Amino acid sequence: MNEKETGRIEAFSDGVFAVAITLLVLNIKLPAQLVPALFDDQHLWRELSGQLPTLFAFLTSFATVGIMWINHHRLFTHIKRVDTGLLLLNLLLLLLIVFVPYPTALLTEQYALSPGQHAAAIVYSGTFVILACCFNILWRYASYHNRLLGKDVDTRAVIAISRQYLFGPLVYLAVFGVAWINTPATIILSFALALFFALPGRALRLEPFEPLEP
Amino acid sequence: MNEKETGRIEAFSDGVFAVAITLLVLNIKLPAQLVPALFDDQHLWRELSGQLPTLFAFLTSFATVGIMWINHHRLFTHIKRVDTGLLLLNLLLLLLIVFVPYPTALLTEQYALSPGQHAAAIVYSGTFVILACCFNILWRYASYHNRLLGKDVDTRAVIAISRQYLFGPLVYLAVFGVAWINTPATIILSFALALFFALPGRALRLEPFEPLEP
Amino acid sequence: MNEKETGRIEAFSDGVFAVAITLLVLNIKLPAQLVPALFDDQHLWRELSGQLPTLFAFLTSFATVGIMWINHHRLFTHIKRVDTGLLLLNLLLLLLIVFVPYPTALLTEQYALSPGQHAAAIVYSGTFVILACCFNILWRYASYHNRLLGKDVDTRAVIAISRQYLFGPLVYLAVFGVAWINTPATIILSFALALFFALPGRALRLEPFEPLEP
Amino acid sequence: MNEKETGRIEAFSDGVFAVAITLLVLNIKLPAQLVPALFDDQHLWRELSGQLPTLFAFLTSFATVGIMWINHHRLFTHIKRVDTGLLLLNLLLLLLIVFVPYPTALLTEQYALSPGQHAAAIVYSGTFVILACCFNILWRYASYHNRLLGKDVDTRAVIAISRQYLFGPLVYLAVFGVAWINTPATIILSFALALFFALPGRALRLEPFEPLEP
Repeated sequence: MNEKETGRIEAFSDGVFAVAITLLVLNIKLPAQLVPALFDDQHLWRELSGQLPTLFAFLTSFATVGIMWINHHRLFTHIKRVDTGLLLLNLLLLLLIVFVPYPTALLTEQYALSPGQHAAAIVYSGTFVILACCFNILWRYASYHNRLLGKDVDTRAVIAISRQYLFGPLVYLAVFGVAWINTPATIILSFALALFFALPGRALRLEPFEPLEP
Repeated sequence: MNEKETGRIEAFSDGVFAVAITLLVLNIKLPAQLVPALFDDQHLWRELSGQLPTLFAFLTSFATVGIMWINHHRLFTHIKRVDTGLLLLNLLLLLLIVFVPYPTALLTEQYALSPGQHAAAIVYSGTFVILACCFNILWRYASYHNRLLGKDVDTRAVIAISRQYLFGPLVYLAVFGVAWINTPATIILSFALALFFALPGRALRLEPFEPLEP
Repeated sequence: MNEKETGRIEAFSDGVFAVAITLLVLNIKLPAQLVPALFDDQHLWRELSGQLPTLFAFLTSFATVGIMWINHHRLFTHIKRVDTGLLLLNLLLLLLIVFVPYPTALLTEQYALSPGQHAAAIVYSGTFVILACCFNILWRYASYHNRLLGKDVDTRAVIAISRQYLFGPLVYLAVFGVAWINTPATIILSFALALFFALPGRALRLEPFEPLEP
Repeated sequence: MNEKETGRIEAFSDGVFAVAITLLVLNIKLPAQLVPALFDDQHLWRELSGQLPTLFAFLTSFATVGIMWINHHRLFTHIKRVDTGLLLLNLLLLLLIVFVPYPTALLTEQYALSPGQHAAAIVYSGTFVILACCFNILWRYASYHNRLLGKDVDTRAVIAISRQYLFGPLVYLAVFGVAWINTPATIILSFALALFFALPGRALRLEPFEPLEP
């Protein structure tokens, strides 16, 4: 198998990411479907401002899935070969990506109806803990002894990614702890973490000493 | 990072545009879902002709998203390299593209039920003001000092795009003003603007003098 | 603009075709949503066999959209260059492709509820008349004086396509006439026509004499 | 027709697989839509644990469609050319892929409401029998006398795939038999079979003797 294979696994993953991220908008329900016939401007403005938490949850899930695409894209800059293990691990990762709209909708719905409750926030942040683990497993499987990386791989970038990803499950586990106590804090922390993982590992200066020349 | 990167950002964006533009059709509800059992021909024709405003809103959103795809395609003819900033700005743009079906549905619903009201038209045209700004920011980020453009870039085309895009937020702001007064005019003007941005900047003779040889 | 451009217009069109063809399955509603609590086997078998017309309409629309993809694919084997006109005509074609699930759902619903009525069949077959016209316009725009075709174009294949497509609007217009009289005949004829257009023009021996050597 | 054609048939298939696999998540309904206003934590946890069978059906369908994508991907590593027959057989295969969410939803719904009944499990496993047949027909059409394979084809891999695929319809037929008796066993066996087909034919040592040097 050769570089052409990576092309198709990327195309399929791009498709799944694209559909999953677009389906998120279906969670934003029209006010009309909730309270029909209340469609004069005054009522509509009030309805729309009542939807701001929904919009923020949509924004957070969009940012999370979008930035996971950026990370998937970044990993596959280095991954050059494909084997059955990688295909299956990638499928597992996509399974969780595709699942994200469900806990998002759950969180949105519960927070709108009973803001003092936490079950949905726990499911929501738990999903991200598992997602962070999947990203780690996929990356470590591919990068173990450079198994599926290119020959001219940028060793420093690989090490930077490995370090940054080590933090992933830990910090998402911390957010998971917060979810048992406070729902808005869970959403805001998830959003902040998404932005953190948008930055390339190297930009974060996670390597204080320069370990290896490429 | 190299030209191959642009390939994948384009593939992901194409996927998101394709899903978002296809989801628009879900806004056209079957008459059956509104008035069941009224399915003999006479009633159906009346129902269908009552849906013409919905069809026109669908057409406008389709044209808008489709022509934004043409513009995205045109920009990435010139953009050759990718960095984290571009990935994030592109994600912000896609966020708004994905959002378009929601204000479209809102506008459709409110115009059908209370045509004298304007809240939905304001949200609808406001979305396009923000979208036009995002296109400008993405383009200016990429074209600033030719940061992410190819070495053999067509300088005149770049200048033509920059000029045409300067008008974008201004004219959409004007439509935003109209939205506070008249909903049908908002839809028609949005449609006309979409067509305007379908034309390449150069075709519009925005440059009366020939500023630079390529 | 060069051959690379065709790549992206094809990718976007592939995405739209793929989403539109997959959304068709959403028209097959679960019996549960119609008659809840009737979920023992006897009732379910009866429900499912009652859904056979729906399944056949799904099959017809799937075949139609799928074979339109095959035709789009065949045209773009010959089309090598892109201009704004082609982008807009392609967008118009995709608009109609995306619209197909709506008349399909309408036809399914009306035929199930009042089989003696014809309004939905008229809308359904009318859509295909317009689609056949769009295919013709797109192809004649691109092939006029070989405007957007490659230099090494297969002239006989081009002529064969032009002839086969000439029949398109005419035969779909005949089906449109049938739709005013008989709904099942409309569905069956549409299905047969889809298969006809699956065959490459040359296979049909539309050219009795060998007009040109390539 | 040449290798470029395979590119586009793969892109379109990737798109259809990606949309179909992502639409599966829509089958997981929010508890809110079933029992509104029961959104305090205790009720929600109970609701969510009641959804575990739905989640497992989602998982099985996701694994099945995902692994069918892996198989499609594996076949098209060997298939290099395209003709009208392949386009139509591929469309038939995609028709069944796109259909998978429907029997999945049916199975989920019936098993949740009347677990002792089997109609949905029969439809579900029947779909997989037909799918396994379609995969066989597509592969035998393409590999017959190496019709559409590359010149430098890996003969042993081709034989291994042909042998592994021979088992497909037989084992799915066995599961189809089980479906008349026991629904949970049907789901578990379908899941196990999906994993079996994830492994490449060669890894299974289906060829005890080394029949041919490549």
